[in-house]
Amino acid sequence: MKRAHNFSAGPAILPVEVLEETSKAVLDYNNLGMSIMEMSHRSKEYDAVFVETQNDALKIMNLSPDEYSVLFLGGGASLQFIMLPMNFLVTKADYVNTGEWASKAIKEAQFVGETNVVASSKETLFNYIPKDIKFNSDADYVHITTNNTIYGTEYKKIPDTGNVPLVADMSSDIFSCRRDFSKFNLIYAGAQKNIGPAGVTMVVVKKSWVEQKAKDKVPTMLKYKTHIEKDSMFNTPPCLPVYVVGRTFKWILKQGLEALEEHNIMKAKLLYDMFDTYPEFYKGTIKDPVDRSMMNVTWNLPTPQLEEKFISEAKAKYNMTNLKGHRSVGGVRASIYNACPVESIKALVSFMEDFMKENK
Amino acid sequence: MKRAHNFSAGPAILPVEVLEETSKAVLDYNNLGMSIMEMSHRSKEYDAVFVETQNDALKIMNLSPDEYSVLFLGGGASLQFIMLPMNFLVTKADYVNTGEWASKAIKEAQFVGETNVVASSKETLFNYIPKDIKFNSDADYVHITTNNTIYGTEYKKIPDTGNVPLVADMSSDIFSCRRDFSKFNLIYAGAQKNIGPAGVTMVVVKKSWVEQKAKDKVPTMLKYKTHIEKDSMFNTPPCLPVYVVGRTFKWILKQGLEALEEHNIMKAKLLYDMFDTYPEFYKGTIKDPVDRSMMNVTWNLPTPQLEEKFISEAKAKYNMTNLKGHRSVGGVRASIYNACPVESIKALVSFMEDFMKENK
Repeated sequence: MKRAHNFSAGPAILPVEVLEETSKAVLDYNNLGMSIMEMSHRSKEYDAVFVETQNDALKIMNLSPDEYSVLFLGGGASLQFIMLPMNFLVTKADYVNTGEWASKAIKEAQFVGETNVVASSKETLFNYIPKDIKFNSDADYVHITTNNTIYGTEYKKIPDTGNVPLVADMSSDIFSCRRDFSKFNLIYAGAQKNIGPAGVTMVVVKKSWVEQKAKDKVPTMLKYKTHIEKDSMFNTPPCLPVYVVGRTFKWILKQGLEALEEHNIMKAKLLYDMFDTYPEFYKGTIKDPVDRSMMNVTWNLPTPQLEEKFISEAKAKYNMTNLKGHRSVGGVRASIYNACPVESIKALVSFMEDFMKENK
Repeated sequence: MKRAHNFSAGPAILPVEVLEETSKAVLDYNNLGMSIMEMSHRSKEYDAVFVETQNDALKIMNLSPDEYSVLFLGGGASLQFIMLPMNFLVTKADYVNTGEWASKAIKEAQFVGETNVVASSKETLFNYIPKDIKFNSDADYVHITTNNTIYGTEYKKIPDTGNVPLVADMSSDIFSCRRDFSKFNLIYAGAQKNIGPAGVTMVVVKKSWVEQKAKDKVPTMLKYKTHIEKDSMFNTPPCLPVYVVGRTFKWILKQGLEALEEHNIMKAKLLYDMFDTYPEFYKGTIKDPVDRSMMNVTWNLPTPQLEEKFISEAKAKYNMTNLKGHRSVGGVRASIYNACPVESIKALVSFMEDFMKENK
């Protein structure tokens, strides 16, 4: 199997060994005479997969199962945009607007109650991460989006919110680097970038926060309490996506977050070095290098015509896919999540060198 | 690969060819150098899979894409329990209570507004389908659950609701038999029984109903209009589960609903005949044969001890799995969805004969 150089922003590239294990489990799981897709979610065999995946998530984050619950829910991170305020917005909530997904989260919170955008980089097309933000000390929570897939920014330092609970959408950079996960009261992440396929969203939530602060009058399926009480098995979970997430967690655990982080920094540097070396031809979109995303590298070429040529040549010559920037901003984007091999990035850099010489 | 006799109520058995196709696509889809799980949902290749699956659903139902939209959503059928009233319950809604899932749907509707249980078989442990129901002519809609997985009943005739829009949860019998699908304004079905794996719920909805009657003040992700306007791609859909649903639709189309229905009736008859032949030993739980489910066959043995013995012997001797009745009712249950081969049922019937002789 000749693999593409897959730079998709999501659903994104997965480790080959995860694909191989999944392919096998789809035919027959552990010689049980049935596919992983055909097993009752309440069977002891599937339950073991599910619980191990929950435990591995906590292991990666260095969190205790006594303090945190791990939920695997459907509906995507977009459903969390509304679940979060439905459960926790009583007085007011603080949001930092760093991009399209943050904006969408803000829109849903406004549906529920007072929502303060305490900082935003919107006026400059989200090309930096706001710093030294003044949060409202009486807010129910602060919401941030740790990485911004479309604009290519990422928090390198998590803001200090004092006593105000911190919530993060980590969809596009979860488990790509070390973080003090215990700083967060709730973390959510659509799986389809760093931890699995589309169709499941991981929610890691501090139990005491739910017990003490979550509202009661919330529809059953939209209530975190429902899912916590049933260990995320209130209804049938997305079984196959969770299985794939579990295999990806094993792959992550084998390396450890520190090694993954180092590898990701090295990978991203290969591309960012090109911007610094050829700033007139490869124009990075992010103002301050400290805000550059390690996951989604975004840039422009001198003209839109050259960008189009760049993207189509990369595809035609080397099967480099999904290099087109998000339809809302254009330009070029290389998404280089955990599973993206350094070989793909080296191939891209080499192509960038050639392309520049031929087109400058 | 020696297949189990899989009688799971869901996630449930799938056609072997669907497993084989999925196993292959998980490794590499169409020689693109990437897994079906690694493809951007907005790529032309994945989009083709998605749109074809939507079209095939309409083809199976003999519905026009001008009149109906097909959505593939996350969160399970349980999320539809609240989405439906959030979008459509303005004045009042009528519900028929035929089991646990209907009861859960009723509970969520009550959260939104006036909910009338116009008929119920609850007092007799849901052992029949209510008939000749008087619906409220000014209700916003009538909600029924066409098949009841836990209790083993199924509507053989869809009630006439006159001008009141009809909505059905068809999770556990969709595409197992012919139906006049045009009678319904909205149909929803968790995929994990007859049409695919867990993690995706199909919603088929009459566009004009949404345009004319759906409420506007509904959170974005919970609003049918959002998903209809974006052809079910408002956010990343559960890509792999939808792919499997698509392959299952091809398998269904190859046979046609008429042939599938005949086959399902024949399969169920093999089991129901046992109740009629040995009514003292195999005691069907459903009062009137006309209400018997073709999908979930439920029965008791003379004692709970014999039931336990029956279930464990079937597993130990013949790898017949998941014959235990739902934890809320006990007894024995064989779920025999579309993909359950007649050989499995014949093997079960043969075991039933032997077991009876040895234990009566």
